Formats: sequence, structure tokens, C-alpha cells
Amino acid sequence: MALDKNWFTEINEKGGTAFSLKTTRVLHDERSPFQHITVYETEQFGNLMVIDGFVMLSERDNFFYHEMLSHPALFTHHSPWRVLIIGGGDCGTLREVLKHQEVAEVWQVEIDERVTRIAEKFFPELCDTNQDPRAHFHFGDGIRWVTEALPDSYDVIIIDSTDPIGPAEGLFTEPFYRQCYRALNHEGIIVQQSESPLLHMDIITAMHKAMKQAGFQTTLTLNFPQCVYPSGWWSATMAGKSTALMTIRESDISKRDFTTRYYNLAIHHAAMAYPAFLEAQLGDQPHHF
Amino acid sequence: MALDKNWFTEINEKGGTAFSLKTTRVLHDERSPFQHITVYETEQFGNLMVIDGFVMLSERDNFFYHEMLSHPALFTHHSPWRVLIIGGGDCGTLREVLKHQEVAEVWQVEIDERVTRIAEKFFPELCDTNQDPRAHFHFGDGIRWVTEALPDSYDVIIIDSTDPIGPAEGLFTEPFYRQCYRALNHEGIIVQQSESPLLHMDIITAMHKAMKQAGFQTTLTLNFPQCVYPSGWWSATMAGKSTALMTIRESDISKRDFTTRYYNLAIHHAAMAYPAFLEAQLGDQPHHF
Repeated sequence: MALDKNWFTEINEKGGTAFSLKTTRVLHDERSPFQHITVYETEQFGNLMVIDGFVMLSERDNFFYHEMLSHPALFTHHSPWRVLIIGGGDCGTLREVLKHQEVAEVWQVEIDERVTRIAEKFFPELCDTNQDPRAHFHFGDGIRWVTEALPDSYDVIIIDSTDPIGPAEGLFTEPFYRQCYRALNHEGIIVQQSESPLLHMDIITAMHKAMKQAGFQTTLTLNFPQCVYPSGWWSATMAGKSTALMTIRESDISKRDFTTRYYNLAIHHAAMAYPAFLEAQLGDQPHHF
Repeated sequence: MALDKNWFTEINEKGGTAFSLKTTRVLHDERSPFQHITVYETEQFGNLMVIDGFVMLSERDNFFYHEMLSHPALFTHHSPWRVLIIGGGDCGTLREVLKHQEVAEVWQVEIDERVTRIAEKFFPELCDTNQDPRAHFHFGDGIRWVTEALPDSYDVIIIDSTDPIGPAEGLFTEPFYRQCYRALNHEGIIVQQSESPLLHMDIITAMHKAMKQAGFQTTLTLNFPQCVYPSGWWSATMAGKSTALMTIRESDISKRDFTTRYYNLAIHHAAMAYPAFLEAQLGDQPHHF
């Protein structure tokens, strides 16, 4: 069957796959100084943001990604007071981070202010805590921000970027991880979106290697569903300066005073499980099971 | 961007999504007495079987589904000797079941013999154990087969069918589950593919209810990635006559003498974890964590 003009399609040429959502209208379309941003209204997935032809998020299923990019790292660090988000312009990750009462300060450093302004308008539920006095915004280059940060500035750095091609490429390199390492407290953790375990094992493997070369003692890939991204299966990769990434604050997770839609204690453990082929590629992990 | 004629697209009209794979040629196309079966060669996913416009399996990613439809149930039952597969014509589930040395006999009851003959030709790796003397084939109606089965005929029944619309509809009903209950040993287990937790919670919820009404004491949904099915996230639902479905043969899993690509002990536990929204819908499960 053929898709008519009412469908938005993201073609993943390299992977030989494409994913489409049925749209009802274009809500917004602009070329910012950095990229081409379009917002569609879809039939079943709520509003959809597309940047340079790639799906960024949908209203319906962004909770998987935003919860998994924030809660596992924050519930692994024993006291995440100071959090830095690189990218994350839609503010969905920020909102999840702010749910943690022990977080005293979050900086969100997004290169393109237009992404945040458009999110405020078309994804208001993701931005409803942007006025929290703990939230701080800087619109500028994330690599420069980390490079200029003082040592021991952050407990957790979340890298919520686009794919490692184009503007975000530098965020997947050893020199950048080395700057993160320097800017973190000695028990600091980074977590970064790391593509699909089915389609992009080369990227995930290279990230582990670069993170370790930058000085991080432990690395761990979490996996979770993400319908609107290629293969429908996505991952985040964590690295710890000295923290055992599989030892998590179980009791705090169970007693958390906020709601989540995907994340909970069982899912945190589940996300750490390495499928057989991932274990073969990345080596044995000290599973809890 | 638009997809040209080199792409096969499955449109999920109700869900407002579509998934496409880039094809290189049509290898086979026929109308069997039951359905329209097409096999494509794809650019990145190996051979692809499509029935009545719906993706059945690809060479590249069928291992998720076939492993998760077989190993969890077989490693939950304490001694799965006699296994029945309803559907499963591509023989991928059968191959995984036959990896278990304690299985003495497997019957595969598929309504459409052509699916099996086409799989033998275009998915030979799934059929490479079809000559195993423990494997038995019957091409006919699965509901009738179970209805005519003697009580206590099977330890595990695997329902590896198409979606619950059209020919497979009767396989998702209480009367069918009641016949399965009757045909099973008193510690018997059924496991059935149960669609996407993101898109089809109505189906999953109805299955749990019908299974319990048919007499099964415990039910449990497993979730796992499946790139080529809608949303990229899929599930299988188990029901046990008297078996605690979350108590599994951990030591046997760890010591298994066969290879898997997705399944292992950590993944078995991970698949049992209920996301927050699933827990809210299905009720609390006795998690191991």
C-alpha cells in the first residue's frame, strides 16, 4: 500500500527502514539559525516535532525516552544535587529531573532556543515546570559550556542530543567525555542517548570505548522501547567516574513521591539486562539476577 | 520524503502508524487457500514474509519473537515434555522449542501448509530442525485440534498466530482457552503472542480476563522488542493452571546447552517487569526485584 500526503515519513536509508505517522495538519514550520523545525498534529500520536526530517518526539510516546534518560541516572547517584542537561530543548528531560526533590539546581544548555520556544507552545505539558526556580537555561554550545565549567561542578550530566551526525557529532567523542569527567564530582555520572541496539551497535560500542578512554571506570547501556525512533527500540548509555552503576537507590525508587508512566523499580532493573547479542558485544555485566 | 515502489509498507490505519522496509525484489507471491503470501528480499532485513499485507517475519529480527515465545514458557514449566504449537507455520518457534533436550514431542498445528512450504524455501535456517524425530506436523484447524485433544495431553501450548482479527480471532477467546486448559497437564502453561503494549492494551487486558475466566490461576505478560511489528514493541502473555509464572528454572537457564541471540536469564527477568502504565492496567505483579 502507498502512503498519501497525509503521512509524515522518516526514511532511515542506511538501515533500510522507514516509519510513518498519519498527520492531520502542519502546526508550525520554520528554519531556525541551526535547523529546520516542523510540528505536525498527528491522528493518533498527538503533536509531533520533526527536526531536519528526523522525528524528535511525539506527545504520545515521549515519556519512555524522557523518563529513561533521567530517572535511572538520578536514582543511581547517591545524591544528585547539581544536574546539567546538554541539548534537551523540548524540556521533557528537564521536567523529569525536576521531579527529584533532592535536585537543587539544573542547567539546560541547548544550542537552539527556537526548539524550546516551540516546545513551550506545542508541547506545553513538557514545559510546565520551566518556571521552577531550580531550573536555569542557557542557549549556546554544550561542548563549550562543559569545557568552561569548573571541576566538580555537577553530579549528573545528561546528554539529550540528536543523532551523532551533524551538529551533535562532537558530543559522542572522547575529548567531550573527558571534559564531562573533569566537570563532574568524583562520584559523577553521565548518561547519553545511544541509538538503537538493533541498528547501531557500532555507535554503542564506540561510546563505551570512548567513555572508558576518557577515564570513566564503569559503563552501562540501558534499553527501552521508543516507538517513533528507528527500530522502535532505543538505548541510553551511562558512565560513572567511580560509581557502581548497577547499585541503585531501590528504596528511594519504591518510595518516590512522583508519578511516572514507564519507569519504576522493576523497569530500572529490566533496562539494565543485556540481551545475549549485546552481552557478546559489550562483555559481561554484573547482573543482579 | 516519499517512499518509492522499492519499499514495502504495512499501514496500521487504526494506530495511525506505518512501517516500511526497503526491498530489492519479490521472491514469491501466491494466494493459498487461506491467505495471500508474499516473500520479499529486503536490503537490510534479509527475506521478509508478508501475509495479507501484514509483516509476519524478517530474517534479521525474528529471533526476538521466536525466542520469547518459547524459552520463557519452557523454562517456567518444571518439565516440559509435550509441547503443542498452534500456528507457527514458519517453524521458527518450533526450532527454539526443539533446542530443549527435555522436550520429547512437539506437535505443530498450522492451518496453512503453504506457509511452512514457503518457509522451508525462503527461511531455511528456521526449518533446519524440521526433520527432528520429536517434531510432528499437522496442517489443519488449531481450535479443532485442541478441542479433540485428550485431557492432560500437553505440558505447554504455544499460540503463535496472526493478529486477533480474521482467521485467528477464535484463538483469543475464553472458549478456546477453556479447551487449552482441559488439554493441559495440571501444571500446564499456555503462552500466546499478545500484540503491542503501547497500541493494544485493550487486547492484552481482555486476554488476561478471558484466560482467568477459563480457569487459569495466574497470568503474566512478557514484553520485548520486535522492530517489524507495529510500535516496535511486542508482548507474549502466559497463563498457568497452577504454576507461579514468575518462579523460573534459573539454574537451567544459566546452564543451557544451546545458543540464543536475545534470550538469557537477565532478559527473562526483564521481560516480566511491568512498566508503570501496564501495572496500573493489569494490577500488581509479584516482581522478583
